[in-house]
Amino acid sequence: MKINWDTIAGPTVLINRRRAQHNIRTMQEKANAAGVALRPHFKTHQSNFIGKWFGPPESTPIAVSSLTMAQQFADAGWTDIHIAIPLNPRELPALNSLASRVSLTLTIEHEDALAVINNITHALKVMVEIDTGYGRTGMHWQQHNRIRSLLDALQAQPKVQRIGLMVHSGHSYNATGDAAIQAVHQESSARLKELIDMMAWHGSPLWVSTGDTPTCSRMDSFPMANEIRPGNYVFYDLQQKTIGACNWQNIALAMACPVIARYPERNEVVVHGGAVHFGKDWVDTTQPNGSSERIFGQVMHNTANGWGAPITDAVVISLSQEHGKLRLPAAMVRELKLGDLVIIVPPHSCLTMNAAVATEHFICFDD
Amino acid sequence: MKINWDTIAGPTVLINRRRAQHNIRTMQEKANAAGVALRPHFKTHQSNFIGKWFGPPESTPIAVSSLTMAQQFADAGWTDIHIAIPLNPRELPALNSLASRVSLTLTIEHEDALAVINNITHALKVMVEIDTGYGRTGMHWQQHNRIRSLLDALQAQPKVQRIGLMVHSGHSYNATGDAAIQAVHQESSARLKELIDMMAWHGSPLWVSTGDTPTCSRMDSFPMANEIRPGNYVFYDLQQKTIGACNWQNIALAMACPVIARYPERNEVVVHGGAVHFGKDWVDTTQPNGSSERIFGQVMHNTANGWGAPITDAVVISLSQEHGKLRLPAAMVRELKLGDLVIIVPPHSCLTMNAAVATEHFICFDD
Repeated sequence: MKINWDTIAGPTVLINRRRAQHNIRTMQEKANAAGVALRPHFKTHQSNFIGKWFGPPESTPIAVSSLTMAQQFADAGWTDIHIAIPLNPRELPALNSLASRVSLTLTIEHEDALAVINNITHALKVMVEIDTGYGRTGMHWQQHNRIRSLLDALQAQPKVQRIGLMVHSGHSYNATGDAAIQAVHQESSARLKELIDMMAWHGSPLWVSTGDTPTCSRMDSFPMANEIRPGNYVFYDLQQKTIGACNWQNIALAMACPVIARYPERNEVVVHGGAVHFGKDWVDTTQPNGSSERIFGQVMHNTANGWGAPITDAVVISLSQEHGKLRLPAAMVRELKLGDLVIIVPPHSCLTMNAAVATEHFICFDD
Repeated sequence: MKINWDTIAGPTVLINRRRAQHNIRTMQEKANAAGVALRPHFKTHQSNFIGKWFGPPESTPIAVSSLTMAQQFADAGWTDIHIAIPLNPRELPALNSLASRVSLTLTIEHEDALAVINNITHALKVMVEIDTGYGRTGMHWQQHNRIRSLLDALQAQPKVQRIGLMVHSGHSYNATGDAAIQAVHQESSARLKELIDMMAWHGSPLWVSTGDTPTCSRMDSFPMANEIRPGNYVFYDLQQKTIGACNWQNIALAMACPVIARYPERNEVVVHGGAVHFGKDWVDTTQPNGSSERIFGQVMHNTANGWGAPITDAVVISLSQEHGKLRLPAAMVRELKLGDLVIIVPPHSCLTMNAAVATEHFICFDD
């Protein structure tokens, strides 16, 4: 399908199907070559339609970040679902219902969660989250006695069919370039190995799941892992480009926003497209003079069917609820007319897509 | 209705009906005393249910910030709707349809929009947006010749039943305290007066609409205005508290988030409640030692039916898609259990409510 620009009235997410499918294929080939399973994280797109680009639902294991997403994808035919956020005891009834109809993997990272696991009435898999340096969630990798005790307790629970360790090295998002990504990857792998060595684990084999998008995109081997679990790579975005996880040509999602105001005197335009559409995440950029600037999107060249390269010094400088303020080259401001569409790559495609899924304002096109 | 805490499983917006209705009443009384009309901005709540707290739909003029919201409220019975964002020519067919069934006010801020106004096939009202210092949208207040020409052209258009000037002094959000809010208000009023004087306008009376929430909350007179147009005051939030536009007791919206991880060793807990729930807006706070910290929410004392005062040094320090990381007093971290609900006032209730409306995860309670 080509984009029919005339049908776009308000802020609309555009998804380049060829690029997204290329990204999906590339990551699958990498996982195959590295000898690890791939469990794509569906929190990035949250769409049943796009989910099927990864393969048939019944043979595609997936990760999600909420019970709500798990229920949605279970309803749509996915059968192997990992809720990759620590267990919330308040969701026990719904988790039981879900465990009765899909192969469900839960995440825990504290002994207190065992009481909840014991109340799950169906077979399930459990991953213990390990913190190897990110500092968000997970048991600290040096707490090997505590982690081994938790694994022992899980192994003693007959309903638990598989146990494993899960890592999310989200601090790779603070890295820039392959050397820095590699440093995070190596440190995280070494810490995971140290934990496993120190535990001297002799129980059933531990299934190890790792993998953030920067690491999975730039590294080729995952020696500690049985499985990788990236999500953002389907679309990528400005944060991933800044990290060095992708090229501009990999970015498969952008937003088309109509111009609603122009200010040649200050090289600015305002579009309809604000925090409720983009999600208000940001990228801190370094200017040629060395100063730092926080931006909320990168403006791209329009093409007949999609977008081309980034436009130099054309960025979203602020977002309010529905307005996006853009700084553009003087010539571009002069040429833009009221209602023209500006194409913007957002900082964080997960948040942009989350907003679009809620309002169903996204278009998949073929270029 | 009292809150039934047991029914809350995931991140949920709580709305204190008594406080919200008090805020609505207080602003209406202020408008009455000041002799101005009140046109509440419904972008903050976006809810038909809450909208009716402001009065009967058919006798409550409202402002909205998108065509989509205008359509929603028109469908639900509101009949006097101002779309308070500059006109987007791509929406002409839908605007025509809307103008056929409600008393519609459109916003323009450029001559190029006249061609679109001329293509509206029904009677309508038009506001010309004036920028008195905010620097987002609107014609610069010193462009009096340009503004007068635009008003002349509108007056010559028989379908345009009323013309006026609209101001949003959004830079009041950068103010702290009454003196600073008053400075923005006085400057904006003076600039609007200068414009009107310089235009020496002798056409039909101009309807003047002003009013951001900080100014409307703290000032008592609006000498240039026929109408004020605040929105956020229904709930207020952490940004408004920081500005000095409200007290803690005025804040009518908070989010209940279940604890999913605890770290006594670093005085942190993680809740289910992330950027997709809060909206990722922030407040920059000044610490006792003078340094600045960016926070994403303030943790409140739980009460039997709602929340009480803020807890000292208990804040949201980062948000990812579904996770919220909180720094809490050591004693609180020790006492919290997995699944306990933490009550958090968000930085910006408009964005939090926008997310909640999409997923229908909000509860209105009576305390």
